[in-house]
Amino acid sequence: MKCSVFIATSADGYIATIEGAVDWLHTAGNPEADRGDNADMGFGAFMASVDCMIMGRKCMEMISSMNLPPEQWPYGDIAIVVLSNTLTTPPDNLQGRVAMFSGEITDLLKELESKGLKHAYIDGGATITSFLNLKLIDDMTITRAPLLLGGGIPLFGKLDHQINLINASATAFENDFIQIKYQVHYL
Amino acid sequence: MKCSVFIATSADGYIATIEGAVDWLHTAGNPEADRGDNADMGFGAFMASVDCMIMGRKCMEMISSMNLPPEQWPYGDIAIVVLSNTLTTPPDNLQGRVAMFSGEITDLLKELESKGLKHAYIDGGATITSFLNLKLIDDMTITRAPLLLGGGIPLFGKLDHQINLINASATAFENDFIQIKYQVHYL
Repeated sequence: MKCSVFIATSADGYIATIEGAVDWLHTAGNPEADRGDNADMGFGAFMASVDCMIMGRKCMEMISSMNLPPEQWPYGDIAIVVLSNTLTTPPDNLQGRVAMFSGEITDLLKELESKGLKHAYIDGGATITSFLNLKLIDDMTITRAPLLLGGGIPLFGKLDHQINLINASATAFENDFIQIKYQVHYL
Repeated sequence: MKCSVFIATSADGYIATIEGAVDWLHTAGNPEADRGDNADMGFGAFMASVDCMIMGRKCMEMISSMNLPPEQWPYGDIAIVVLSNTLTTPPDNLQGRVAMFSGEITDLLKELESKGLKHAYIDGGATITSFLNLKLIDDMTITRAPLLLGGGIPLFGKLDHQINLINASATAFENDFIQIKYQVHYL
């Protein structure tokens, strides 16, 4: 299973404030800037490349708290699995949208592969860190909002080992967001 | 006094391992890559733009530990001030190269300005964070090495307030280092 990250952070590497807020993501930079063909900063093309999604419980709860109407649901109809050892059912507003999973990540990937799925979108700081420690992430697209939060929930947690990145690329968008892409090269 | 940052970090935002090591900075990426005119990734041009440097004690001790011969001294002959409330004299191998300062940063800047100095290079994570909290940093150039350290000393410490960044630009070098530049926009 190819596993990809597509995530936004502050310029100092946080994915949310310590309280879990991500409103700064929508107000940072210049929302009026003409972004031309890059209005979604590549999210649509990325979504079209994946066929399933794996996220952590906190990430799911953040999405649940947005209470998105169907027309604003950003993940299409791909299979979404939520990792949790404590919850067995999703929040009411995500019923039918996500499936809960408790167990080993490698078993989950085998299960998804057995269904013919090939490319997973991995989301949430703790989940991404777990996948990196298992050497499962293939590439990462990180879009940094132009602000320093000064504290919060970091994208990258503690890793068991250093990890080399290759094939770096970077784009600064008109709204002052900077998107960087890497492939992950495990030793 | 214009205050600028020019610093390297890992892709996960650390300036050194928890033990203070920065050897990964010299081995990360592809050292054999043809970097053309960008061999120093802009450091020479940056140094030519500043006329003094302010760093913290830890940053000084890291430089001291390198025990650089004169021909490898990277900071030319600009005035270098080291902030420390505990040390009053520099290590032997930095005697004559740096001056110690204990006191308020704003007083130091006034003193430097009274000598005709106009543009300071601010170095070291704790010092940069202090300057940001005082709303004194004007611009930042951050060069990210293509690896995840997984832990260490972060570039950005806790900030008293969110800080907006503008005029973002980004360059991916042939060796897979990514350099981003921002101007700082205080409210």
